[in-house]
Amino acid sequence: MPDVGAPSDAVEALREGALKQSRAHQWVEELTDAAGPRLAGSPGDAAGVAWAVAKMQALGLEKVRAEKVSVTHWTRGVESGEVLSPTHHQLALTALGGSVPTPRGGIEAEVIEVSSIEDLQHRSRAQVEGKIVFFNAAMQPDKSGKDYGRLNPIRGNGAVESAKLGAVGMVMRSLATSKARFPHTGMMRYQENVAKIPAAALAVPDAELLQRLAANTPLRIRLTLGCGALPNAESANVIGEVRGREAPKEIVLLGAHLDSWDLGTGALDDGAGVGVVLEAARLISLVRPHPRRTIRVVLFANEEHGLEGSKSYAAEHQSELALHAVGLEIDAGTGRVYGMTYLAGANAPSILEDIARPLLPLGIPKPVQALHHGADLIPLRQAGVPMAHLQQDGTHYFDFHHSADDTFDKIQPADLAQVVAATAVLAYGVAEAGSRLEPIPETQRGLPK
Amino acid sequence: MPDVGAPSDAVEALREGALKQSRAHQWVEELTDAAGPRLAGSPGDAAGVAWAVAKMQALGLEKVRAEKVSVTHWTRGVESGEVLSPTHHQLALTALGGSVPTPRGGIEAEVIEVSSIEDLQHRSRAQVEGKIVFFNAAMQPDKSGKDYGRLNPIRGNGAVESAKLGAVGMVMRSLATSKARFPHTGMMRYQENVAKIPAAALAVPDAELLQRLAANTPLRIRLTLGCGALPNAESANVIGEVRGREAPKEIVLLGAHLDSWDLGTGALDDGAGVGVVLEAARLISLVRPHPRRTIRVVLFANEEHGLEGSKSYAAEHQSELALHAVGLEIDAGTGRVYGMTYLAGANAPSILEDIARPLLPLGIPKPVQALHHGADLIPLRQAGVPMAHLQQDGTHYFDFHHSADDTFDKIQPADLAQVVAATAVLAYGVAEAGSRLEPIPETQRGLPK
Repeated sequence: MPDVGAPSDAVEALREGALKQSRAHQWVEELTDAAGPRLAGSPGDAAGVAWAVAKMQALGLEKVRAEKVSVTHWTRGVESGEVLSPTHHQLALTALGGSVPTPRGGIEAEVIEVSSIEDLQHRSRAQVEGKIVFFNAAMQPDKSGKDYGRLNPIRGNGAVESAKLGAVGMVMRSLATSKARFPHTGMMRYQENVAKIPAAALAVPDAELLQRLAANTPLRIRLTLGCGALPNAESANVIGEVRGREAPKEIVLLGAHLDSWDLGTGALDDGAGVGVVLEAARLISLVRPHPRRTIRVVLFANEEHGLEGSKSYAAEHQSELALHAVGLEIDAGTGRVYGMTYLAGANAPSILEDIARPLLPLGIPKPVQALHHGADLIPLRQAGVPMAHLQQDGTHYFDFHHSADDTFDKIQPADLAQVVAATAVLAYGVAEAGSRLEPIPETQRGLPK
Repeated sequence: MPDVGAPSDAVEALREGALKQSRAHQWVEELTDAAGPRLAGSPGDAAGVAWAVAKMQALGLEKVRAEKVSVTHWTRGVESGEVLSPTHHQLALTALGGSVPTPRGGIEAEVIEVSSIEDLQHRSRAQVEGKIVFFNAAMQPDKSGKDYGRLNPIRGNGAVESAKLGAVGMVMRSLATSKARFPHTGMMRYQENVAKIPAAALAVPDAELLQRLAANTPLRIRLTLGCGALPNAESANVIGEVRGREAPKEIVLLGAHLDSWDLGTGALDDGAGVGVVLEAARLISLVRPHPRRTIRVVLFANEEHGLEGSKSYAAEHQSELALHAVGLEIDAGTGRVYGMTYLAGANAPSILEDIARPLLPLGIPKPVQALHHGADLIPLRQAGVPMAHLQQDGTHYFDFHHSADDTFDKIQPADLAQVVAATAVLAYGVAEAGSRLEPIPETQRGLPK
């Protein structure tokens, strides 16, 4: 990237440079080939941290460091499922992240099918006790991925709600928009004083099989999970910067998460985001002069299974949070950006409309205020840090998300280049803007109900 | 189906009745839900035979019987693969059907990548000895599925050719047209006096991973297969008929195969064919009067792993083969029929053009002479039995074929109804035609080189 003179020239050059020469897909390839799956605390997670530190250094970022984070450590082990009656079938299923194991020989029980947590809560204890609850709700594909928000409380809370009625296990139709026979994992939670029961996700074809079989006759299944919790492990947030020329202590945070679930190699979730923010920072680092403020890339530890990297970052950098000019996280796969949202103080619309004007040629209309942002930014939002968000086309994201099929071949380099272009334009714009965005009003810092 | 009077009315009624009311998809659902995977000799295979006998009886077919067949019996067992260096990865792979096992702890070796059997044969023994040969050839999707024919010699003969040069194992990129992370199995062969080495197929993303890793550095992998051969088991060809009104000993054979590979439930391969031929026979059985000749449905045993059902059928029914008016097998999944081919004597074009005219509204042009036909018909062709074939759109067939993802949800009921319509029209037409097709000329009965 040459010395491009005026900031508006820099923005154009960043955008066009990203579209033509983005290497984001290459960083995803390198990360996934070097480290494979990166479940928090696993050898792959450590390999991911080592790769990221070396890559940031190789790309010429400054102040590269790995800031230690203590992470939840859970392992999967063997897992299997079987229909025992009315006919025998092997089931494609996988433990939800955080699940307790079954006894070694598994648990056998009759299945009770429900369509939602509300449906379950209308059942009597006599109907549920001693059974395995089967949550059978189908996710619809959508650009915004909104069905994931609607249905993921089943994954998070389904086991607890089932146990409250005496269930001995919980299985669910995967949160997936494809009928490919992959089970999709993801985090679940237990609750104090509620029995911890094993929980698993079924591949969509297997959920549909259970639905058909259960329609005609009582259904018994066996569920065997060898997963379990280990003592916390050490991981790290990996951080590197492009130092600002005038206000280096003011920080434009470009985030992604370095960890992944263990079934695939986390190319989409969130290798793609890692590739995008590294590449956006690399391209900005080549602009002369650098923007006024510092661009800080933060590759968060363990987003998937506890958000511990982001919590640790907010705690460790508390004194700096007031100097964070914006937080932006890329964590939605390989889909093109179709919109921009923000959450900040009263001066945000005028500042961001100017900054976002160069996004129009990328097909991204005028930004709108909304609560969207990456999960790792929750602690920053609670501190009032202005949030920006690029909405990526999620129509196919949940075909692969959290499954063994989340692998590098699913990355679309040209689409990812568009995400890099948008990210670089937005980050450079906030870093160079004459005024800082005002913080999020206190009333908007909490999580929505 | 009412008494429809003239044969031409019957044909129209069959075609339109099939399009509107086909229950073929329902038979696939029932078969796959009742029996699951149906690998020859497995409990699912026996369940499939029991289901088929009961279903033929329930549909009102005549002379329903299970004719015993001794089948190759092979089981899969545990299987896994790992990249050991340059970095660690778990590989999604599956044993090829018929493979010998590895020692319990697996085999570890360096990988040598080749693009074809010819490529392998140009390597020196020193290059191959002690290594695992990795056949890396990508299959392209196509309506005709022709790449399967081009590449399946790798699956069939790759292990033998590798062993001839001293390899200790063989892995191959799955014969698959999707990048979904499923390995696709299928039959392989050994050769007397050549060492039997274990053989497996890699999911496409894993083959692409090996390709990337092998491009830069020597690659070592571990392959662990617990599969193995057992003594032959008992299975059966399941047969039922619609008795012809004038020449009941003359037979229109409608074939499909009842067995499947063990990874999925064989809904496409060949539950779909089973559903189609049962439904076509059911619809024809409702026509009054019945056609002149007998419609015989034959659900062959163990097409996948030895063609033993079809060999047994040809041997057991040798005295009848001269009375077989035509052989037609449906074994290509759920895709619509786009063409018809045949192989028979000199009078075939004029007879079949008349019979095929009612296929035109289904989008099926005038039939052409060609060597296509179902694998189970090979022994009949060798005996000169006239062959007809309906070409189904195979663009997506090899996305699922021989993988865990071959499940009922992949069936497209409306497309399958069109296949039923074409099958019923063709079968009825041959069964009712004034003249018999002459046998295949001697020179065309052999397998093409």
